[in-house]
Amino acid sequence: MTENKKTIGKDHGREKTTRVRVGNFSISLDGYGAGPDQSVDNPLGVGGEDMHDWVVSTRSWRQMHGREGGTEGIDDDFAKRGSGNIGAWIIGRNMFGPIRGPWPDMNWKGWWGDNPPYHVPVYVLTHHERPPLEMDGGTTFYFVTEGIHDALAKARKAADVKDILIGGGVNTIQQYLREGLIDELHIAITPTILGGGERLFEGVDLRRSGYECVRFETSEKATHVILQRKQSEDA
Amino acid sequence: MTENKKTIGKDHGREKTTRVRVGNFSISLDGYGAGPDQSVDNPLGVGGEDMHDWVVSTRSWRQMHGREGGTEGIDDDFAKRGSGNIGAWIIGRNMFGPIRGPWPDMNWKGWWGDNPPYHVPVYVLTHHERPPLEMDGGTTFYFVTEGIHDALAKARKAADVKDILIGGGVNTIQQYLREGLIDELHIAITPTILGGGERLFEGVDLRRSGYECVRFETSEKATHVILQRKQSEDA
Repeated sequence: MTENKKTIGKDHGREKTTRVRVGNFSISLDGYGAGPDQSVDNPLGVGGEDMHDWVVSTRSWRQMHGREGGTEGIDDDFAKRGSGNIGAWIIGRNMFGPIRGPWPDMNWKGWWGDNPPYHVPVYVLTHHERPPLEMDGGTTFYFVTEGIHDALAKARKAADVKDILIGGGVNTIQQYLREGLIDELHIAITPTILGGGERLFEGVDLRRSGYECVRFETSEKATHVILQRKQSEDA
Repeated sequence: MTENKKTIGKDHGREKTTRVRVGNFSISLDGYGAGPDQSVDNPLGVGGEDMHDWVVSTRSWRQMHGREGGTEGIDDDFAKRGSGNIGAWIIGRNMFGPIRGPWPDMNWKGWWGDNPPYHVPVYVLTHHERPPLEMDGGTTFYFVTEGIHDALAKARKAADVKDILIGGGVNTIQQYLREGLIDELHIAITPTILGGGERLFEGVDLRRSGYECVRFETSEKATHVILQRKQSEDA
């Protein structure tokens, strides 16, 4: 597996500038980022957890979740790259929790316990106001009701020169893709079949938006692709 | 890259029985089997030809097209596997040619010249009758107007104990998938972006149909996956 040298490891000369990224996002062979019938027991839909086989055993993922050990290699390299140098996250409300509609109370504090694995500000897109929620370990959830542009502006301030990660889910990524606001996507294509659910690239024309594949590497558990928008000097 | 030993290389005990297969079928990262704006100049749509980079340099593909040389390795292994042991092909009319509606005359004889690379009977799905078309090298095109089941019955007779390849395009494969008539698919996921066109797994629920991924291997140019229907003894 050789690297495509054309754009890899370069930031198109814009070093130390914030990039808006999708990282470590897994999809099935049939293109779904979440399976059918999402619920509290199956936050990624039926079969959705299988898409994470490649990442949960890596050293980087275990470290991020306060555990020791783990594998090194291609999967770990990409896991590290995906979650590295992040100054702020943006996530959809369904990624924050299973509750829909107005907040019944302030008891739900995310899927991740008292010390979520973010350790930076996390902007949660929602239609329902809620005060910021400060957690252990540096994570604070901010609830943004003014839309994706407002969330991005807030995340830019918080991230300073670091990157912003659009964490998901599918609908949130699509909203930012359609507005042309994502500089780079790292997608892990996994040997799973979901059959239904939310298709990542539904209603998104990646070609028209100017994306190209600049890396294509595979472990036994996933094919990792990096998509970047073509820069004008390459056109 | 290790092989999944569970079902690989086995024919589920049904040796010397015809299997209905899709082989060497390429899709883009965004899931399209053909790009937008198909035409005589772009039979696979704009950008579609790029999906075939992995196959056209292989020894097997070159041999099939009467040329010498070519590469060996993973891509060649899959190319050989895909086109090997085939007793009959079934293709859609749009794969046979760009003409729509009734045949204006009998002049169009396919994209492939006098000696097409099939060398076995090829059943072409169409709504418009036409006499069989015998070509050099053992290829005869039969035009089937009675639908996909009739084409499959005819292909079974012709194939005897060999396999039947559903060659494409996307719409033809989907018709057979929806009827549960395909035993195995070999799909090559390529580092291309088409942005639009015909999505291979649109309106198809592979999970409900019982498919599982039994091989997942990658060259620099494609991730090859083999999908097979689970057999009752595995369930």
